[in-house]
Amino acid sequence: MASQFGHNIRVSIFGQSHSRAIGVNIDGLPAGEAVDLEEAGRFLARRAPGKAPYATARREADAPVVLSGLVDGYTCGAPLCAIIENKDARSKDYEQLRDLPRPSHADYTAYVKYGKYHDIRGGGHFSGRLTAPLCFAGAVALQILARRGIWVGAHIAAIAGVEDAPFDPVDLTAEQLLAPGRSPFPVVEDSAGQRMREQIEQARLDQDSVGGIVECAALGVPAGLGEPMFDGLENRLAAALFGIPAVRGVEFGTGFAAAALRGSQHNDPFSQQPDGTVRTRTNHHGGILGGISSGMPILLRCAFKPTPSISQPQQTVSLSAHQDRTLVIEGRHDPCVVPRAVPCVEAAVALVLLDLIL
Amino acid sequence: MASQFGHNIRVSIFGQSHSRAIGVNIDGLPAGEAVDLEEAGRFLARRAPGKAPYATARREADAPVVLSGLVDGYTCGAPLCAIIENKDARSKDYEQLRDLPRPSHADYTAYVKYGKYHDIRGGGHFSGRLTAPLCFAGAVALQILARRGIWVGAHIAAIAGVEDAPFDPVDLTAEQLLAPGRSPFPVVEDSAGQRMREQIEQARLDQDSVGGIVECAALGVPAGLGEPMFDGLENRLAAALFGIPAVRGVEFGTGFAAAALRGSQHNDPFSQQPDGTVRTRTNHHGGILGGISSGMPILLRCAFKPTPSISQPQQTVSLSAHQDRTLVIEGRHDPCVVPRAVPCVEAAVALVLLDLIL
Amino acid sequence: MASQFGHNIRVSIFGQSHSRAIGVNIDGLPAGEAVDLEEAGRFLARRAPGKAPYATARREADAPVVLSGLVDGYTCGAPLCAIIENKDARSKDYEQLRDLPRPSHADYTAYVKYGKYHDIRGGGHFSGRLTAPLCFAGAVALQILARRGIWVGAHIAAIAGVEDAPFDPVDLTAEQLLAPGRSPFPVVEDSAGQRMREQIEQARLDQDSVGGIVECAALGVPAGLGEPMFDGLENRLAAALFGIPAVRGVEFGTGFAAAALRGSQHNDPFSQQPDGTVRTRTNHHGGILGGISSGMPILLRCAFKPTPSISQPQQTVSLSAHQDRTLVIEGRHDPCVVPRAVPCVEAAVALVLLDLIL
Amino acid sequence: MASQFGHNIRVSIFGQSHSRAIGVNIDGLPAGEAVDLEEAGRFLARRAPGKAPYATARREADAPVVLSGLVDGYTCGAPLCAIIENKDARSKDYEQLRDLPRPSHADYTAYVKYGKYHDIRGGGHFSGRLTAPLCFAGAVALQILARRGIWVGAHIAAIAGVEDAPFDPVDLTAEQLLAPGRSPFPVVEDSAGQRMREQIEQARLDQDSVGGIVECAALGVPAGLGEPMFDGLENRLAAALFGIPAVRGVEFGTGFAAAALRGSQHNDPFSQQPDGTVRTRTNHHGGILGGISSGMPILLRCAFKPTPSISQPQQTVSLSAHQDRTLVIEGRHDPCVVPRAVPCVEAAVALVLLDLIL
Repeated sequence: MASQFGHNIRVSIFGQSHSRAIGVNIDGLPAGEAVDLEEAGRFLARRAPGKAPYATARREADAPVVLSGLVDGYTCGAPLCAIIENKDARSKDYEQLRDLPRPSHADYTAYVKYGKYHDIRGGGHFSGRLTAPLCFAGAVALQILARRGIWVGAHIAAIAGVEDAPFDPVDLTAEQLLAPGRSPFPVVEDSAGQRMREQIEQARLDQDSVGGIVECAALGVPAGLGEPMFDGLENRLAAALFGIPAVRGVEFGTGFAAAALRGSQHNDPFSQQPDGTVRTRTNHHGGILGGISSGMPILLRCAFKPTPSISQPQQTVSLSAHQDRTLVIEGRHDPCVVPRAVPCVEAAVALVLLDLIL
Repeated sequence: MASQFGHNIRVSIFGQSHSRAIGVNIDGLPAGEAVDLEEAGRFLARRAPGKAPYATARREADAPVVLSGLVDGYTCGAPLCAIIENKDARSKDYEQLRDLPRPSHADYTAYVKYGKYHDIRGGGHFSGRLTAPLCFAGAVALQILARRGIWVGAHIAAIAGVEDAPFDPVDLTAEQLLAPGRSPFPVVEDSAGQRMREQIEQARLDQDSVGGIVECAALGVPAGLGEPMFDGLENRLAAALFGIPAVRGVEFGTGFAAAALRGSQHNDPFSQQPDGTVRTRTNHHGGILGGISSGMPILLRCAFKPTPSISQPQQTVSLSAHQDRTLVIEGRHDPCVVPRAVPCVEAAVALVLLDLIL
Repeated sequence: MASQFGHNIRVSIFGQSHSRAIGVNIDGLPAGEAVDLEEAGRFLARRAPGKAPYATARREADAPVVLSGLVDGYTCGAPLCAIIENKDARSKDYEQLRDLPRPSHADYTAYVKYGKYHDIRGGGHFSGRLTAPLCFAGAVALQILARRGIWVGAHIAAIAGVEDAPFDPVDLTAEQLLAPGRSPFPVVEDSAGQRMREQIEQARLDQDSVGGIVECAALGVPAGLGEPMFDGLENRLAAALFGIPAVRGVEFGTGFAAAALRGSQHNDPFSQQPDGTVRTRTNHHGGILGGISSGMPILLRCAFKPTPSISQPQQTVSLSAHQDRTLVIEGRHDPCVVPRAVPCVEAAVALVLLDLIL
Repeated sequence: MASQFGHNIRVSIFGQSHSRAIGVNIDGLPAGEAVDLEEAGRFLARRAPGKAPYATARREADAPVVLSGLVDGYTCGAPLCAIIENKDARSKDYEQLRDLPRPSHADYTAYVKYGKYHDIRGGGHFSGRLTAPLCFAGAVALQILARRGIWVGAHIAAIAGVEDAPFDPVDLTAEQLLAPGRSPFPVVEDSAGQRMREQIEQARLDQDSVGGIVECAALGVPAGLGEPMFDGLENRLAAALFGIPAVRGVEFGTGFAAAALRGSQHNDPFSQQPDGTVRTRTNHHGGILGGISSGMPILLRCAFKPTPSISQPQQTVSLSAHQDRTLVIEGRHDPCVVPRAVPCVEAAVALVLLDLIL
């Protein structure tokens, strides 16, 4: 059940980087939900590669074909399956990797687990390309959530140590939330984005790569959603988010920084609102208390490691010769996956929230 | 299914802080596994409260009674259920909390979800006391793992900004791994522990609390364990760890710090060992690549927020009067849960590893 | 996960025939549901042994103790765990069975699966005694369903070939449905019940046993409940019902008899009702079409094999000597489990329906 | 999660009768398993329609296209997804059914559940056509099981009351088990098959349909497979088998007939074999005791209702006019689905066994 998640909806992702197609099956969507495929296409375009200089040059059509579950633009209650054909697959690039596992990739662990049968081409099922069907599923979820007044957005919080301004944890508006996603480089402050792009370009010139952090928020999530202990919002969100390649950490609200605060600093005072609702004056808790939503903005951050594919010579081993070897990875690769990861984070969060709301 | 996790074994935790008993049911344990209840009791004692000055004064017997699943000290294949009676429950302390939710506690979200039926006494099912049965289950898992050469240990990595020395990510020995757990204050460097205790004591004197970070490692996990995408080691470990109250972030290997590194710094070179195995020279990946174990030490860190129960007056609302109110929480509370959280992290990690190995 | 079922609620049963206690944990019950423990006790009494001549003479207190999840008679949202202590356990009866597996019992398969660690005493976890916690959980579910206008009842449809009158598949009333359960011998027609008891008594005198069939119905289940394919009403009901020891077959509506009918006989014509609802004129479909409830009474039948414990000498093998042996099972046993199985069937059906409705 | 089943492998079926494609995704297959697509095609051909006179005239190419999970004929560890395009879809036949639900079909319950969004064309997701991807998945499972010495086969046990000879419950050989599947009309005794075909032809001439029973057996299943209570062989097999359209009952071993037997007749004596194994002299238990395999042949039977689509005028209602109506279903339909259901039963059983063995 490796490539599935969800309880009320079940999202199953399939495909390898160079298989005939990749795709996603979503079981459990309610009937009668409009799905705007053009809007989904625009969402998918946000993770599409090929936007120089910070993305790989492999161009993918990435036009999802819906096989089932949709009739005249509406979900019909049956599982919604969509596939994306793999067209531009240059398999020759990858053959040496079967013997020389790339550092920080899954080549070695996949070899241990699957032996010689692992589909090494393009990273196989471990490829970042598998986030395309995740994003398609997320696009469907975002449309359903939006009709219920729930909005999910994300931005690049940091790249190579350059930090963007954070979302306002208390007074974040939907307009502020969604603005970064409308830009080709999704940040809150353009000046930060400019400095991040300089870092990425410098890494590229150095045949190196950089990592970063994505901050994501959800607005409109009603209070009372989630469960205590092992099935709370954090548990489910984290389990989904670690399914995105290169994620190394997930934190909610003030997260790791909370560890250095005192209770008097971190506790969020409650406040009665004139409209009858209860809010908190600060939002260190990131909209989640005891695994259950509080009605405040849900806030989380994901750390992404630097792209492991770099052009510099690296030390590895020959699995056949049992000797150390030097590896030079050829081809062009993203010096930074973070900008393309932003919609992936939104997709994972949207799918978990939809799962919980149904 | 809020209070359950696991696939091959299923750990179900039940009880409230002031219910007749709390407990855990573990379904799916293999038959024929010896369970040393005295050793489990010693493990449980590591999370027991009452060790002044940094723990709550409530004294709990916490002696688990095994109801089923164990015959003459060996698992019999049937579900293992153990309970701990709640004896020292002073319910009167908590009555005002039904109307005045404590900041950063689950009182408010539980009220939204369960209404007036929520068991407010001692935090009900959200109480940190529910980690006692988690630890009992973890103790059973640790014993089974140890017989298979797998060791799990943790220490306080930081409290209130005071940092302990980290585990050696590459050459960590079982002795080093388990040493902190044998100490009443589980740290690698005693001097750091001393400074941490001073911070805790100062917070207590200030009617305040402090948070911290727990680092956990597992040795002996064979390479090839785990699954890609949504059922990998990170996904499962994070989903379990966020079940521990007060956890706000989980990171693996270099974690959030990886976001500021370059690929050439973060990638872990492979190295052929004379004994035929493959290892990495560094361990930024924390023993997990593509969701699958690499054979290197598994490394993770959990951030804990400062104890939300503090004695200072705090702002909250009256749920009945719909007005802001000032709350003073009475009774004594841990100014820092982190020392007691160390075995909880070990327990959650052990249960996930056991689940994956079976 | 052997001893669990359910999606929205999760029912976990634990214990062995001679363990300290047996019990059940129900995770996922909504908060605010009244649970009348006296009424649950009356339901539980319907499966209690000791009613001569057709039941085993072992007397069990069978008074469930609620450990958690219930506050002042209402569910609080936390898992509801209840246990029943095992008091009257005569373990000496069972020792020879470790070497000489009883025909048609699970002794042999448990030996293969668990080896010498299987708890052989009283059948261990395979004992019919484990239906006591199932019935307690079912009693809770029945109370919650009743408040939503859903009623579940069952009767003995046949014992040893003697048939009771069936429930009216179309016009069954709640009164008719629940009447058998109020009788010490739950049948529709007392004369059939009298003949059944004669069969049971004759079997007892012959040191033999008899099997039978239980018919169960549910009224008030709204149309539209269930899912297509593998998660429909039949799938879930059957999966739960086969968890009752001795069940060998499950059928819905006309069931196996439908295999000999023509479509023109078996198809149920739809009919518009004056009150605006749609009903069928006949009910061969047993209230389920495509895995989804139709609004008609849900009808199902379970076949129970004859009690495998009989006093006659039987052929078995010595697992240690690897030789054929003759076994004489001592002690007193039910010559027919069917009367006591009636509430078990109701319990399993009620729990599945509750799971689907939440 | 309606259209999924399995624990270690997860089989997800998608598609509607007239969607662009139907298909199946199998997550969790081990790497390195050869899949012979030609052999799978031959298995799939056994359920293919168009074999006059007893099958619908709709001709389907039914050639599955593998999208992922297979490299050079071997599973690679990634999910295996295969699709079958829907080419010969005559949607005009079905439009009136949106208003006039067909008796004994899921039209009405799907209308209640999904409203006007249900894909009414050809029965949508409820169509028997969805058993094609089930059979493809089953074909893959059968190949993997065969390499482990496990064989699954089935035959028509009865149609319209005409009975075939049963499988030998004790001494069944693989040759006997697989022989019916090699025939275009899968029975043990050709003379019975001839009489069955006469019944089908007569029903067809009468514009009617007939039901039947499929018996299935599995050989080579090692003793000790399965779990007690709710996750046993019966529970899982039944849950999967009721996913096949038109199944109304499932029984194991002697099944419903056991209800009329005495214990002395039904109990299966154990017998020590010269080769060291333990067998039973009879096999009323159908190879399963306490949910766990005994090593004897696994035996089960499924009842299929008569095809609900018949050409005779039938009574139904107009969902828009809220009035009774007469419906005449046009087009050609199978007067009996049982012959085509035989490989579907084998597929479901094989997938459950594979799931349990992994």
